[in-house]
Amino acid sequence: MLKIAMAQMEVIPGHPDQNTATILRMIKQAKAQQADIVIFPEMAVPGYLLGDTWEQPSFIRDCESYGQDIIAAAQGITVMFGNVAADWTKKNNDGRVRKYNAFFTAQDGELVQPDGSPYPFTIKTLMPNYREFDDTRHFFSLQKLARELGTTPAQLLAPLTLSIGDQDYRVGCLLCEDGWSDDYELSPVELLRHQGKVDFYVNISASPYTLGKNGKRNRVFGHEASEAGAPLFYVNCIGLQNNGKTVYTFDGSSTAYDAAGRVVISAPEYKESLAVVTLDEMEGMPACQPPEEPEIAHIYRALHYGVRRFLENIHMKKVVIGISGGIDSAVAAALYCDVLGPENLLLVNMPSVFNSETTKGLSQQLAENLGCRYMIVPIQHSVDHTIEQLEHTPVTLLENGTKKSLQVSSFVAENIQARDRSARVLAGAAAAFGGGFTCNANKAETTVGYSTLYGDQSGFLAALADLWKHQVYALAHYLNDVVYGREVVPQGIIDIVPSAELSAAQNVDEGKGDPIKYPYHDYLFRSFIERWQKATPEDVLIWYAEGTVEEHLGCEKGLVARYFPTAEAFIKDLERWWNLFTGMAIAKRIQAPPILAVSRRAYGFDHREAQNGPYYTRKYRELKAKLLQEA
Amino acid sequence: MLKIAMAQMEVIPGHPDQNTATILRMIKQAKAQQADIVIFPEMAVPGYLLGDTWEQPSFIRDCESYGQDIIAAAQGITVMFGNVAADWTKKNNDGRVRKYNAFFTAQDGELVQPDGSPYPFTIKTLMPNYREFDDTRHFFSLQKLARELGTTPAQLLAPLTLSIGDQDYRVGCLLCEDGWSDDYELSPVELLRHQGKVDFYVNISASPYTLGKNGKRNRVFGHEASEAGAPLFYVNCIGLQNNGKTVYTFDGSSTAYDAAGRVVISAPEYKESLAVVTLDEMEGMPACQPPEEPEIAHIYRALHYGVRRFLENIHMKKVVIGISGGIDSAVAAALYCDVLGPENLLLVNMPSVFNSETTKGLSQQLAENLGCRYMIVPIQHSVDHTIEQLEHTPVTLLENGTKKSLQVSSFVAENIQARDRSARVLAGAAAAFGGGFTCNANKAETTVGYSTLYGDQSGFLAALADLWKHQVYALAHYLNDVVYGREVVPQGIIDIVPSAELSAAQNVDEGKGDPIKYPYHDYLFRSFIERWQKATPEDVLIWYAEGTVEEHLGCEKGLVARYFPTAEAFIKDLERWWNLFTGMAIAKRIQAPPILAVSRRAYGFDHREAQNGPYYTRKYRELKAKLLQEA
Repeated sequence: MLKIAMAQMEVIPGHPDQNTATILRMIKQAKAQQADIVIFPEMAVPGYLLGDTWEQPSFIRDCESYGQDIIAAAQGITVMFGNVAADWTKKNNDGRVRKYNAFFTAQDGELVQPDGSPYPFTIKTLMPNYREFDDTRHFFSLQKLARELGTTPAQLLAPLTLSIGDQDYRVGCLLCEDGWSDDYELSPVELLRHQGKVDFYVNISASPYTLGKNGKRNRVFGHEASEAGAPLFYVNCIGLQNNGKTVYTFDGSSTAYDAAGRVVISAPEYKESLAVVTLDEMEGMPACQPPEEPEIAHIYRALHYGVRRFLENIHMKKVVIGISGGIDSAVAAALYCDVLGPENLLLVNMPSVFNSETTKGLSQQLAENLGCRYMIVPIQHSVDHTIEQLEHTPVTLLENGTKKSLQVSSFVAENIQARDRSARVLAGAAAAFGGGFTCNANKAETTVGYSTLYGDQSGFLAALADLWKHQVYALAHYLNDVVYGREVVPQGIIDIVPSAELSAAQNVDEGKGDPIKYPYHDYLFRSFIERWQKATPEDVLIWYAEGTVEEHLGCEKGLVARYFPTAEAFIKDLERWWNLFTGMAIAKRIQAPPILAVSRRAYGFDHREAQNGPYYTRKYRELKAKLLQEA
Repeated sequence: MLKIAMAQMEVIPGHPDQNTATILRMIKQAKAQQADIVIFPEMAVPGYLLGDTWEQPSFIRDCESYGQDIIAAAQGITVMFGNVAADWTKKNNDGRVRKYNAFFTAQDGELVQPDGSPYPFTIKTLMPNYREFDDTRHFFSLQKLARELGTTPAQLLAPLTLSIGDQDYRVGCLLCEDGWSDDYELSPVELLRHQGKVDFYVNISASPYTLGKNGKRNRVFGHEASEAGAPLFYVNCIGLQNNGKTVYTFDGSSTAYDAAGRVVISAPEYKESLAVVTLDEMEGMPACQPPEEPEIAHIYRALHYGVRRFLENIHMKKVVIGISGGIDSAVAAALYCDVLGPENLLLVNMPSVFNSETTKGLSQQLAENLGCRYMIVPIQHSVDHTIEQLEHTPVTLLENGTKKSLQVSSFVAENIQARDRSARVLAGAAAAFGGGFTCNANKAETTVGYSTLYGDQSGFLAALADLWKHQVYALAHYLNDVVYGREVVPQGIIDIVPSAELSAAQNVDEGKGDPIKYPYHDYLFRSFIERWQKATPEDVLIWYAEGTVEEHLGCEKGLVARYFPTAEAFIKDLERWWNLFTGMAIAKRIQAPPILAVSRRAYGFDHREAQNGPYYTRKYRELKAKLLQEA
């Protein structure tokens, strides 16, 4: 009657002291519930996304020291937990101390050595080195160790034998990616299976949330359990971890799969939880059915948790949001208001001569709907003063004494407005209010840099920058319909044409707005960044020639014909955005705020980029010439 | 009489078309010089630092297609070059197409297959995965291939047999890191040596410049050549490549080592060059002696080349610099003026009530010395207007109608000034002038975030942000003494106390300035980032207790006693800066401009960091308690 406790804890990255306190507390709780084994997540002591903190030997020793406390606390219960393990006698390939991403098992104050392992812990075999993951930068894998020792991974990876009561259990110990072996030359799950009977598997993870991952994991891990004919316990952490530019929520969603691969325990998302399962009773348990929910419900939960924890981490209790009467700032306002409460949220509307009564009214209505703090700070005087100063201050070329003045074009004046709003008003208001101000950019704008640096692109966090425009609209509906249960984001804001209102050419009342045609460009841009095989103009133009653009992009049929009467128009649009995406937008993203990730691929550390300028392949140029000639 | 041409070309990252044109041109030049072999750098076709462009299959196919052009051009000459190689039948561990960092050799329009290799190219064996390098993210190493094929690297790595004239030559083909094997379990150079006689080695590289690297390479590669008793040709590219946040110059410095390990050819830094060497005559050639130069001369060359190429890459011809009368902006002005000429440089002095006549005068003098464009834009009116607007605009809490106003503290007012200068004046002036404005931060300020976000921290490039303050001073002297040969940076700017002049507390005429004590903090901060084993407060406090702080940091003796009369004062200072370095400064660096790298460790992609807040190890806390108790 083995009782296993799955300890879904919040891991605070870079704070072994706090994590160890949580672990020690949850060990007590597990003992109080008569658990025989308690399982903690991967890297439960140090945290997972730490940048180059792994290069501080004193930090590694600190993690080892806290690990000793946990081992000592394993009395009357078996404790499984993730921590960094160092071998101070060996080096990594960077010349620094050898480090492993390790799975420890402690009993009676001692570590239990896995069969076959040269160390008293299991080493992570598969090291993700794509997307936001940098495991190979810091940790030596089991394969590399096997090579070094002149042996094979199969020789080093065997189940752990655990004596509990009068019985021996053979446990397959896995760390996160070890369970995702499809693209690797070996599968740790299979290797373990070939070493004789395994009573159950344990996968300890530090797995960031992204849309759709949980469903996929249930398929992959459920299959592994049923193939092996043994239960599998997946224990993930909750919390917020970041790589600087990209911020990840960890949703927990720890899961117990029975020997048939059914989900019998599914821990709640974003909540600490200690689920206790009796091994022999799993087959009699009903299967968990995840509730049917729209995608946006998951996104909302990730955003809400992410924003809340991010604010707590940086000790920010008050937030300022510049609202324009447009959809992005309105959704941001409703989201933050839900997190912080209306008294801690200051909305600021900053009209210039180009802002319509319509959007000024909608801003007011939004603020009233939320009941938060509100102020109106006109920017025209300041903008006029800036333009006047720039145009009337003499510029002297001192080598010959000639004088000239600067000319402010209308394009330059647009950006002066945007910077005046953010860097002058919002930054000042936020500091005076005792908080920060937000960046409300969406992913389409972020893709092509449709924003002003030090203007609307600035802020302490870009919470919506991993959402396409259509997802921002879906979130507006979800906030009104589900979260608030009333019209918080005014319908007028949902209906109005998206516009920056920075010039007379962007008059919303005349239906003039952004140059981005979201129903098409959301999907075009997505193909540049989110496809596993990233698309370039070459791919898009091939699809255009085939007449399969909408099918490949996943957007509404008929849009290409509607928007682009000719091949020339299609190509002009494609190049316009590709030039921005791979040009100025990169310069802007380099200086963008941290982005809260929800998609398969977020900007920042998950999509690394160099400021190398636009490029078109030879094949693209040939196909373009052909299409233009035919036209 | 084998003649070998070392083609030190500029590689434009992400532009295979341009690189191939350069290669084809240099093949012709090499043929005109009767060379038998011409050698191009690693990744000469695609470039090296491309971010996730490697995830675009169309880009990979484009590189393959240009590779075919180069192979076809190998007529009457043997061409060696680096390119990406794809095996479209296999996958990488991320599920994308298999990619190798490959060394191609072409003769008579065909590839020459290396002995032992399953492919008609040599695969890079050692993959750097530290500092700014991400090789393992995209490329499959020879070791991984050996594992996949059930064999060993030794079986796959053999010299290439090259028939030229009537003779066969056995060539050891290496790619960059393959020559830096100290911390790896195998050495490609030794493996090749054990496969029989090697006539010469070729190491094709894409090796970014950092201070001191060339001297080290001459020791390591010279040793390899002499151990092997065979000449070694090291061919590196020139150019500018970047990882977004961090910008690297590639200095070339291609080198031929004779069989005794002597340097007999040393190509110029940062210049295209085609050096032709006759293999049999190398031993009779005189050894090259690198000129004796101070460190700052190398730094200046890297900065000058980096700034020039960065501007060219982004098509920026004009630059605006805000000058304060302080050292950082003065050095930046002198550097940019040297690159762009005085007519393309606009210096802007932006006094508030806190700016002294002293610094205003020094600014004017600097601009006159340079003879560039100059304007004075006072900011007091705008700052006063902003404070007045913020303090007098009612803030209404709409849920109950209560009104309040914001209060602008003197600290908030300091940042308002900084943002007014950069985001309002400089950004506007730069746009009107048709260029960008610079960030003049040094590395000490960047370490602790002693700057204002959207204020002095902003700009299109931070050219000095990898220089400690003492290096900025050294550069001022070098600019005056060597580059200009006259006093361009006024002596008054070199002598004045560094100060932000944002409040009455920072009065330069009273000798009041920055809280950073550069002679000590430069070195303390350096230990946090540049040491291979990164120091933390634990290490520093242990050194303090031992009385070895200055020795470990490498700063002037006696500074600790001079600055910190008590342990309490020492600890207070240490924690103040550590809290900033691992706290707010990370938030600022996330939004900082690209940094031009010159040191062993630059901020950005070379020093990855997460916004996780300050942490002190248990050992630190214990030692601190002990020291404070003793006091």
